[in-house]
Amino acid sequence: MIGLIRVLTTNDEQVLNEHGRLISKMYAVPVRNECIPDQPLGIYNNETEQLANPKIVALGRKLEQEGSQALIVSCAADPAVEQLRGQVSVPVIGAGSAASYMARALGKRVGVMGITETLPDIMKAILGEAFVRYIQPEGVSNTTDLLTPAGRERAIAAARTLMEQGTEVIVFACTGFSTIGLASVLRKELRIPVIDAVEAEGLFASAVYKQLGGV
Amino acid sequence: MIGLIRVLTTNDEQVLNEHGRLISKMYAVPVRNECIPDQPLGIYNNETEQLANPKIVALGRKLEQEGSQALIVSCAADPAVEQLRGQVSVPVIGAGSAASYMARALGKRVGVMGITETLPDIMKAILGEAFVRYIQPEGVSNTTDLLTPAGRERAIAAARTLMEQGTEVIVFACTGFSTIGLASVLRKELRIPVIDAVEAEGLFASAVYKQLGGV
Repeated sequence: MIGLIRVLTTNDEQVLNEHGRLISKMYAVPVRNECIPDQPLGIYNNETEQLANPKIVALGRKLEQEGSQALIVSCAADPAVEQLRGQVSVPVIGAGSAASYMARALGKRVGVMGITETLPDIMKAILGEAFVRYIQPEGVSNTTDLLTPAGRERAIAAARTLMEQGTEVIVFACTGFSTIGLASVLRKELRIPVIDAVEAEGLFASAVYKQLGGV
Repeated sequence: MIGLIRVLTTNDEQVLNEHGRLISKMYAVPVRNECIPDQPLGIYNNETEQLANPKIVALGRKLEQEGSQALIVSCAADPAVEQLRGQVSVPVIGAGSAASYMARALGKRVGVMGITETLPDIMKAILGEAFVRYIQPEGVSNTTDLLTPAGRERAIAAARTLMEQGTEVIVFACTGFSTIGLASVLRKELRIPVIDAVEAEGLFASAVYKQLGGV
């Protein structure tokens, strides 16, 4: 199986499993979802990231010991991904790096959309010269804001702004966009390739899982 | 459909279609295979690469005009990939860059295997700090050499050498390895992830093709 780490604490099975459910459905692979303890608000600044890092590493080690053949840290900032890679032998895939590398492989100019003020450092570093601009849809600071018709229009408007500035592929810097299905809205409305962070992490994790004999 | 460019000239339909057939089988997408004219020996030095580049660009433009929604240049050296990207609006994927970006997304130390003396510049540039070593199986200068039991043993020996020197993932710098099924041999014998260049180009091309409404 693939072990997927959520970097926020939840007792709600529906929420816990939402990324893994998307990946299982899309790529026909088994995913076990686990979350770090005692951080119901997840990671939202440097302090909470520092707090989360050792928990992510410990959880990744446990998931490997219990049979995961690949690990996903399902957060666009790739928290603790490098540290965890030093502690386990299975491949570790981060949402932000996976989405960014996939974008680079397509060779097109990349606009990034997220709900934080800036894009994660890891994404900016990987995108390099392909990076055009980062945008936060107006008035949107959490993904539930995007579930309303007005929020949906704001996301489309933000994507249009990216395209006007030369973006040829849109990359999401927020895994919350995956659970609300924003990628398919933008693909249909604007006919532009969209790299969804959960789809990207799942693409790589499922490929490596399948070749190692899974499924 | 996906348009796939072979960078050698062949009248043999079996040979022409071999990469596309692998991709169609693995990812359930339609692939149209075309080859450049008047280069039966393909690309094997700088002069033949220069000769091939405008043919690749012309063929890519034609494939786009005739309905391809994504293009693949199916060669590990990514010949004319950058030029073609400047001439078409659909995504252009090169075998060498696709395999290298996939390797980077897994975050492991990469050994590269091929049949030329050195690995392609584009692969070395993308692999960066993840690159461990390039190896050419002993006595192997074309892929048919690998079809014999002795050739198979040489490929396994080369992979073992890469692993002894710290390689955690093997990347192929030769699309000919795909048609002889070398990846599955190494995965079974050595239990190491292997990134096959045709599988990697197909992974990205099929993902972008499917999201644009194909299949």
